[in-house]
Amino acid sequence: MASENVVKKLMRFFRPRSVAVIGASTKPGKVGNAVLRNLIDGGFKGKIYPVNPKAKEILGLKVYNRIKDIPGEVDHAFIAIRADTIPDIIPDLAEKNVPVAVVISSGFAEIGNHELQRKLVETARSYGIRIIGPNTYGVYCPPASLSSSFTIPYDYKGSLAVICQSGGVGMAALGYARIKRIGLSLNVGLGNMADLDHADLLEYLGEDKYTKAIALHVESIRDGRKFIRIASKVSKKKPIIVLKAGRTELGAKAAASHTAALTTIDQVVNVAFKKAGVIRAYSLEELFELGRALAMLPKPKGENVLIVTSAGGLGVLLSDACYDNNLRLMEPPEDLVSEYRKFIPPFGSFKNPMDITGSSTPDMQARAVKTAILHPEVHAIILGYWHTIITPPMEFAKSVVEAVEEARSKGVEKPIVVSLSGDLEVLKAAEYIEEKAGIPAYPFTPEKAVRALGALYEWARYAK
Amino acid sequence: MASENVVKKLMRFFRPRSVAVIGASTKPGKVGNAVLRNLIDGGFKGKIYPVNPKAKEILGLKVYNRIKDIPGEVDHAFIAIRADTIPDIIPDLAEKNVPVAVVISSGFAEIGNHELQRKLVETARSYGIRIIGPNTYGVYCPPASLSSSFTIPYDYKGSLAVICQSGGVGMAALGYARIKRIGLSLNVGLGNMADLDHADLLEYLGEDKYTKAIALHVESIRDGRKFIRIASKVSKKKPIIVLKAGRTELGAKAAASHTAALTTIDQVVNVAFKKAGVIRAYSLEELFELGRALAMLPKPKGENVLIVTSAGGLGVLLSDACYDNNLRLMEPPEDLVSEYRKFIPPFGSFKNPMDITGSSTPDMQARAVKTAILHPEVHAIILGYWHTIITPPMEFAKSVVEAVEEARSKGVEKPIVVSLSGDLEVLKAAEYIEEKAGIPAYPFTPEKAVRALGALYEWARYAK
Repeated sequence: MASENVVKKLMRFFRPRSVAVIGASTKPGKVGNAVLRNLIDGGFKGKIYPVNPKAKEILGLKVYNRIKDIPGEVDHAFIAIRADTIPDIIPDLAEKNVPVAVVISSGFAEIGNHELQRKLVETARSYGIRIIGPNTYGVYCPPASLSSSFTIPYDYKGSLAVICQSGGVGMAALGYARIKRIGLSLNVGLGNMADLDHADLLEYLGEDKYTKAIALHVESIRDGRKFIRIASKVSKKKPIIVLKAGRTELGAKAAASHTAALTTIDQVVNVAFKKAGVIRAYSLEELFELGRALAMLPKPKGENVLIVTSAGGLGVLLSDACYDNNLRLMEPPEDLVSEYRKFIPPFGSFKNPMDITGSSTPDMQARAVKTAILHPEVHAIILGYWHTIITPPMEFAKSVVEAVEEARSKGVEKPIVVSLSGDLEVLKAAEYIEEKAGIPAYPFTPEKAVRALGALYEWARYAK
Repeated sequence: MASENVVKKLMRFFRPRSVAVIGASTKPGKVGNAVLRNLIDGGFKGKIYPVNPKAKEILGLKVYNRIKDIPGEVDHAFIAIRADTIPDIIPDLAEKNVPVAVVISSGFAEIGNHELQRKLVETARSYGIRIIGPNTYGVYCPPASLSSSFTIPYDYKGSLAVICQSGGVGMAALGYARIKRIGLSLNVGLGNMADLDHADLLEYLGEDKYTKAIALHVESIRDGRKFIRIASKVSKKKPIIVLKAGRTELGAKAAASHTAALTTIDQVVNVAFKKAGVIRAYSLEELFELGRALAMLPKPKGENVLIVTSAGGLGVLLSDACYDNNLRLMEPPEDLVSEYRKFIPPFGSFKNPMDITGSSTPDMQARAVKTAILHPEVHAIILGYWHTIITPPMEFAKSVVEAVEEARSKGVEKPIVVSLSGDLEVLKAAEYIEEKAGIPAYPFTPEKAVRALGALYEWARYAK
């Protein structure tokens, strides 16, 4: 099986025992130097083999003058030598049993050099070697502490995989991840995507135990059938979110001059994605945000969504967003209402949104959250918090974490998203909730919280 | 003219020579104490008259036991006494020639006490006093260093006015503004909106020299005709952005139990808003983001938009967003193209997006920006930046600021938005561009940059 083969090859490549850097450089600032620094600083525990025809040692590592001189096998080849010299070293890589090479070097199709690119891929394939790139920033695999790239290391481990078809987008993904402290299981820059493509990576990620959700930036799909076949299978197991760039007339024109990529009529894409259970994002931020949230949220067990809010105005915005996201605001069960009536003032609202009012103390907030989580008919919860003197942001955050932990200790786990409205302190409170309870929390932006839950349901309805 | 009257009254209220705090408190944490602290800490330069029947001094301020004891007139009354006692003090306020009072106290329509609310407004009106609230957090007027609210002061002066019909949303507005360092000309919480409403505030803001753009959070519109009449007039001068909460079936249901507000069929709202030149936002973040950007951007002089990007992938996303926002990507004029060909490598793209490639140095980036700004046929520019070693984020930021300043020194001013894609450092670079050049800059989120420009054009087409 060719495709099984790809998965196996990628498994070796992303969990390498050894990395060879072809084009290792003694000069700081050069790609072949930066990657060595990143491998070391990123904490990679396997063997690192710098290859350079003249040097003896770089950054304390023994240098090999020829690939042939490397002792034993190489699981991961990083290539940063002149484009036209790469096809010639493929036989040497094959001798070291390299499964996949990531080619950083530019000078291929992106400057019109299609012939060289074709030659690279054909040569590599003839030796059973697969290529990521060329013209890419590289790959990051935090579970293996592997930063095989010339930018700075990324080592915040987690369960979101991000695959990008553009360097600019890939860098944005890393920057965004760093700010939001998103744990990643993988970040791959596909560059010119001459050989391995989104579908190949998807197939691998379907098997990768570290990955819970997959975010793809797609400019072009080379083989639509293959993509849909694999996506349909993988999205039964894990949510896939796609930002399809070049989806409009203007974007497609820009894509054509960018990568000479073929773009497809967007409605066709839409239908195909839906069939394959793929969730569409319409902006870079939405791609990252949904990816982040879906890597955190458990699958819901039913359609009953309950909003619990301490601000009526927030409840209105959350409800609008529920409508936009096809979420079903349940009729609150009678026993739930009578439970709430025990501790919520009568001027609250006992519908859905359940408005526990701005006068709620931290105890009342904790009780409200617990009551909602533990009720068997409630399948998912949207919490709306309003910054007050009575319950400052961190008090609320602690209430939420306490309630969630109590429910978990009873074996109850449900999707919960939190929207926090207030002054600066809500930022820290949101971070606290995410860190301690693993629940996505959104300061200032109620619609984003609901969009995340909406995407979860869209996926869950497909995956059953 | 009744409505001229409102504008004049509000002008006194928002630029007060004197503020009376009815219900001043000696106890820290109480509303009537917190507001005094905020007035002092916020740097208010006028007179502050705390009113409390028993105290002699609070926070170093002389206390007046009765309103009558205050010497001279009062321009701004802040009321935080028991709800049912407020109508009785109206005659005393009238004696001090109070034009407008902001009523913080709750206990009115929001808990079903409609009768008391009606009595408050009728009494006030019979004495020529207008009411903001009741049941609100208050008002902030940074140009007057006036923080007439019980939350913490906001003193970052600027030209965006934000009017909110919900406390939760108002607090989110302040928090968001603080994080993004958005200069405000006004922030008003309308609370129960028993008397003064969005339309009244709009009319005032049309005349307010500090306000360049207006952001409204609207749950209900009491008098649709009045709103549209005033909005049509004001939006000829200044952009108005509205987030209409309760625009969906679910949201409307929530709004009904929140404020007993009447909601209108959304398509009707849409048509009316369009006719009045009002820009619609569909999330809280969009409301704030558009408000922020439109307070910064100059009016464009024509429809020709040019994208200049150093990353092709970013160019594709920016182009998609242009399509979504009805922006016209011009055919680049021949002389512009030949100018770019002088310094951009041949593997760049000389269409629109103009792709100056990741190999661009800071000098090339500065030249590219200058060339675009100074070309007479280019009316607006979208800049796409990609984090590289050759041009790190701050170098790019300095290039942009330098180019903009040079153009300004030649009397050329055009709308420019910037999208930055890269690692953490792009955050600081974006802040630098906003701070130094007054140009909206967006890290990680290309679509937001274009959305801002799209909203500007939507408004400019209406305002001509």
